[in-house]
Amino acid sequence: MSATAFDHPFLSGLLGDEEISAYFTAEADIRAMLQFEAALARAEAAHDVIARPAAEAISAACTSFAADIPALRAATARDGVVIPELVRQLRAATGEAGPHVHTGATSQDVIDTSLMLRLKPVAFIFAARLTAIEVKLAALEASLGAKPLMGRTRMQAAIPITVADRLHAWRTPFDGYREKLTELRFPLQFGGAAGTLEKLGGKAAAVRGSLAQELGLADLPQWQSQRAFIAEFAGLLSVVTGSLGKFGQDIALMSQAGDEIALSGGGGSSAMAHKQNPVAAETLVALARFNATQISAIHQSMVHEQERSGAAWTLEWLVLPQMVVATGAALRLSRELADNIQRLGAANS
Amino acid sequence: MSATAFDHPFLSGLLGDEEISAYFTAEADIRAMLQFEAALARAEAAHDVIARPAAEAISAACTSFAADIPALRAATARDGVVIPELVRQLRAATGEAGPHVHTGATSQDVIDTSLMLRLKPVAFIFAARLTAIEVKLAALEASLGAKPLMGRTRMQAAIPITVADRLHAWRTPFDGYREKLTELRFPLQFGGAAGTLEKLGGKAAAVRGSLAQELGLADLPQWQSQRAFIAEFAGLLSVVTGSLGKFGQDIALMSQAGDEIALSGGGGSSAMAHKQNPVAAETLVALARFNATQISAIHQSMVHEQERSGAAWTLEWLVLPQMVVATGAALRLSRELADNIQRLGAANS
Amino acid sequence: MSATAFDHPFLSGLLGDEEISAYFTAEADIRAMLQFEAALARAEAAHDVIARPAAEAISAACTSFAADIPALRAATARDGVVIPELVRQLRAATGEAGPHVHTGATSQDVIDTSLMLRLKPVAFIFAARLTAIEVKLAALEASLGAKPLMGRTRMQAAIPITVADRLHAWRTPFDGYREKLTELRFPLQFGGAAGTLEKLGGKAAAVRGSLAQELGLADLPQWQSQRAFIAEFAGLLSVVTGSLGKFGQDIALMSQAGDEIALSGGGGSSAMAHKQNPVAAETLVALARFNATQISAIHQSMVHEQERSGAAWTLEWLVLPQMVVATGAALRLSRELADNIQRLGAANS
Amino acid sequence: MSATAFDHPFLSGLLGDEEISAYFTAEADIRAMLQFEAALARAEAAHDVIARPAAEAISAACTSFAADIPALRAATARDGVVIPELVRQLRAATGEAGPHVHTGATSQDVIDTSLMLRLKPVAFIFAARLTAIEVKLAALEASLGAKPLMGRTRMQAAIPITVADRLHAWRTPFDGYREKLTELRFPLQFGGAAGTLEKLGGKAAAVRGSLAQELGLADLPQWQSQRAFIAEFAGLLSVVTGSLGKFGQDIALMSQAGDEIALSGGGGSSAMAHKQNPVAAETLVALARFNATQISAIHQSMVHEQERSGAAWTLEWLVLPQMVVATGAALRLSRELADNIQRLGAANS
Repeated sequence: MSATAFDHPFLSGLLGDEEISAYFTAEADIRAMLQFEAALARAEAAHDVIARPAAEAISAACTSFAADIPALRAATARDGVVIPELVRQLRAATGEAGPHVHTGATSQDVIDTSLMLRLKPVAFIFAARLTAIEVKLAALEASLGAKPLMGRTRMQAAIPITVADRLHAWRTPFDGYREKLTELRFPLQFGGAAGTLEKLGGKAAAVRGSLAQELGLADLPQWQSQRAFIAEFAGLLSVVTGSLGKFGQDIALMSQAGDEIALSGGGGSSAMAHKQNPVAAETLVALARFNATQISAIHQSMVHEQERSGAAWTLEWLVLPQMVVATGAALRLSRELADNIQRLGAANS
Repeated sequence: MSATAFDHPFLSGLLGDEEISAYFTAEADIRAMLQFEAALARAEAAHDVIARPAAEAISAACTSFAADIPALRAATARDGVVIPELVRQLRAATGEAGPHVHTGATSQDVIDTSLMLRLKPVAFIFAARLTAIEVKLAALEASLGAKPLMGRTRMQAAIPITVADRLHAWRTPFDGYREKLTELRFPLQFGGAAGTLEKLGGKAAAVRGSLAQELGLADLPQWQSQRAFIAEFAGLLSVVTGSLGKFGQDIALMSQAGDEIALSGGGGSSAMAHKQNPVAAETLVALARFNATQISAIHQSMVHEQERSGAAWTLEWLVLPQMVVATGAALRLSRELADNIQRLGAANS
Repeated sequence: MSATAFDHPFLSGLLGDEEISAYFTAEADIRAMLQFEAALARAEAAHDVIARPAAEAISAACTSFAADIPALRAATARDGVVIPELVRQLRAATGEAGPHVHTGATSQDVIDTSLMLRLKPVAFIFAARLTAIEVKLAALEASLGAKPLMGRTRMQAAIPITVADRLHAWRTPFDGYREKLTELRFPLQFGGAAGTLEKLGGKAAAVRGSLAQELGLADLPQWQSQRAFIAEFAGLLSVVTGSLGKFGQDIALMSQAGDEIALSGGGGSSAMAHKQNPVAAETLVALARFNATQISAIHQSMVHEQERSGAAWTLEWLVLPQMVVATGAALRLSRELADNIQRLGAANS
Repeated sequence: MSATAFDHPFLSGLLGDEEISAYFTAEADIRAMLQFEAALARAEAAHDVIARPAAEAISAACTSFAADIPALRAATARDGVVIPELVRQLRAATGEAGPHVHTGATSQDVIDTSLMLRLKPVAFIFAARLTAIEVKLAALEASLGAKPLMGRTRMQAAIPITVADRLHAWRTPFDGYREKLTELRFPLQFGGAAGTLEKLGGKAAAVRGSLAQELGLADLPQWQSQRAFIAEFAGLLSVVTGSLGKFGQDIALMSQAGDEIALSGGGGSSAMAHKQNPVAAETLVALARFNATQISAIHQSMVHEQERSGAAWTLEWLVLPQMVVATGAALRLSRELADNIQRLGAANS
């Protein structure tokens, strides 16, 4: 239950993010998958692909459905994806209209769309957290910005700057990040067995449009083997944690110098009662380097074979959720760290 | 509870490894940490650093101790490491001898040693699994080795080889891996606050030797800022999964060609009832590329600052346990895949 | 002269790109650096920071200047950057106005701006190359699009699609890439010693604006420790090569299958005269995985210390130029590969 | 000619290594390839695979042969490997015995063996450089070891240690590295078209043994699709640069603190005459992070398809030589840095 620090019973206190992790539970995933299946049924009914009562039965079943998780686990081991078994269970729960569940769709449609349905709110949470940090840094600038600080290049004293200059370097990138996070158009994935929506014939585009609208996602052609959006999103996560890692690195260096900063909070040592470690600052560096590593796997997974790669797609699953939670944790810790800054610049300045 | 596929309620069926994950639960970690503290007390009593009754009280407390996990979680958030709070709880549970718990040790001694105590049996499990796969591949060679197979280079037909030739390319690396896994000398970490065991004075080397012996670890000087062993171990994991990824890639390519292999098992599709996907084979490729990504973070974390880096060490925690479980999963899937091979070489050969 | 394949006397035939490499020669770099120094002098003269005749003398010197490369090399070894020595040489070549060279600027201003001056035309070349590939793929679609092709998922036959469907999956991402490449706003870097342009006082913003205008770069505040633009640019390179790697992987797989494609060109073997290897296709996969690796270093280098990091910045230098050339090579090879496609879909379809 | 800093006209002063780069020129590669072909001819003559006069003619031709590099470049672009054209040229230069050149061998045999012939002396150079650094650090310990130094953990003052303690942390890993570098058994690669040496029949093992002996390489079965040795070697390079990066990071931090170190040499600034930047120290960090990135590509390239992968092998070429030169540069700079240490520990201690 704890190969990863993000979900670990005690390490998650430092490295996890409960609000963000909630989007990556099996429950949240299944809920979004059912949202897809229900919306698909309604969109198909709207375009007479399936009958309206069937769509209503499917919608109703999705609302009350409780998955048999052990069976999903066993089936995922066999099929490589959870969907065949989930659809089987959902069909069984839908009764007579069961055969109309999942009409024209394939595993990737459900799994990728579920991911988009969850990444979208996460992006807004991240944007809001950036704002909160920025507000705090702006307040520090208002109160402390005029204080002198030694500017340092190549880790050596260079020329005097002000606290405001340092604060600006931390804050400036946030605007662009927030803009990108809130302007991303999370795309519906809907392509059917091999991306051609072959079972929907001439109604394919119309169904896709209605489905996208219902789910609040962008109506774009299937992208099952084209993962640039994933890479762009992951890249954005990693530049966010990169900038926060720079913030953390600077705080750790300022804490070392002694007289440049005063922080409240901070960690104890089992061997030295006098130490107050800038734990959050160092953790920001670790999270930045973690995401800077993972981004490589995301780019490796762009090399999909043919209409869909099992290997490349599975690699994405192993990495992307963790990058999201790592980013959440870095934003959480940055907020705490900013809140803990009692002083910047020399004590007597 | 599921940012990572390895611990995920349903994805872990495909990507997890229960036997190996058990070594990375909070419980297993705490158990190994208590083993360290108990052995330390006994080693220190043996060299008159602490009194024998105190060591006995500590040993007894370690046996019956039940950690307050929520308190550990909150403290890890604050301290960056679990040890100050764990030691506090253990001292409270030890009674009068409490102050003698953890004498001369520091957080890193406990955490790194706990890791070594758990990696050591894992290495032996991995060696045994390699043997099991090799035995199966040897049996295939005995029964099918003489069959002709088209040798392929650059993904093109080259010249005819035999099934035995292909099997050899899969198996040959295993011997070296097994030898390395079983010959690794997992080192005790014991250095105290800054690596100098300053509280043990002239008895430092003797206590360290006794402690290493009791724990079944190698008696080596502290390595708290020197992480080459970790990098070597992680590199070994990644070459193992690399070779298994090559095996999986080959199986996936042979399955595509149609007539070169027959597999039992294999995955279903939610859209196409006729498909039988070589899921395990593709997953091996994904796991190989996952570890090939993570190894980079391990090498990044070699750049420790001064006597110990919080940032570099935390980065290790985020990556190494997952590499171990990914390796376990790859070995498990390779065994299954080898067992599922019904035929190699052309059907009529 | 050949630790890198991109510049290697014979490997560069396969892996290099002469047109793009030309932007990364020492000569091209120095030329762009002199362009910065000349434009800076003129901008400073326009705002009365230096005298107009001094600016004219500097401009003239920049035009005729020939650097002493061995001296630059020796100085870079000592200073970590080429600029102190380059400025020294340029001042000597400028005569009386020499002391006004480089007024208010620092090494990073020159080096980063030189990079932007060269990346900007490269981005346009890349956009044009994408267009050329797309035109070729569109022509293939017009002539061959209706032919049937077996759709494949998880490397297994799925359902029939058309050649047009496969061509679409290759082409679709290009539009977005081209749009991004041509809309990037390459920023001037101009901050002085510690980012505050402290030597220009109240004229700093005006000089920066004029300098940006003259160089055709975006007028943005200094970003010497904020490297998100670099990461975004590198990410774009890597998604381009990722998509081209997917194209190459598919061609290699189609070539293996035998009847799905006919290619002209293609490589010979020293051992097997009959082979025709899809060399360009495989090389595209290698270049995709190369960039997918390097992107990690770029993100690692976001963790700048304080006003400027020597370590993080040097890491960028080691990686970014190679990513650009690798992308050029992948575009070049993709064009060749597209041109070599004689047939897609079954021969008799 | 300079997409890479390692070969760059001025950056190589900082980042290159002339002694090591010499092993990666086209000339050095061709020389080693000819060494292979000559030794192969002699080994084959010894076992009556080809006639002795033919072997003598081939040996003589290899000695006097001058390659047509532009033709090699053009052919590499077409074939993906240089060998078909090199063999063609060599056959033409050999006269009557020409057809016996390269008997039973394939491209990979020549290219991989050439690499091994050059990595072997490089490993010994690296071991010798480690010794030189260690000797210098030992001398510093003898003269300065007893001085007090503040031990620092998590970048905070912890407890006092001595200069000797810090020096030990730097030096301790070197012994293991040197042992591994000098004990590596660089293997001959010799497998023929698909690894089976099918053209040599029953004499294959004998020829391979003689060839290995003549070349001073280990006689091991072909490893053309089994790249664990490459990964192990690259991993060793990266732990070496990782430890040197830790040394550099520490020096940079000590330089910042002001009173802990005095260095001679060090870099100037174009904006601030007073600065003395610890350039070599920072560059060590950059080189460590560079290799920590590249190691990922090496592990990715373990996933070879079938008897030999073009894509995976080409990826190795793009990365491994650079890792070697980066390691050379890090060792060179570490030596310089160690030589430049004038004082460690407080000035008045």
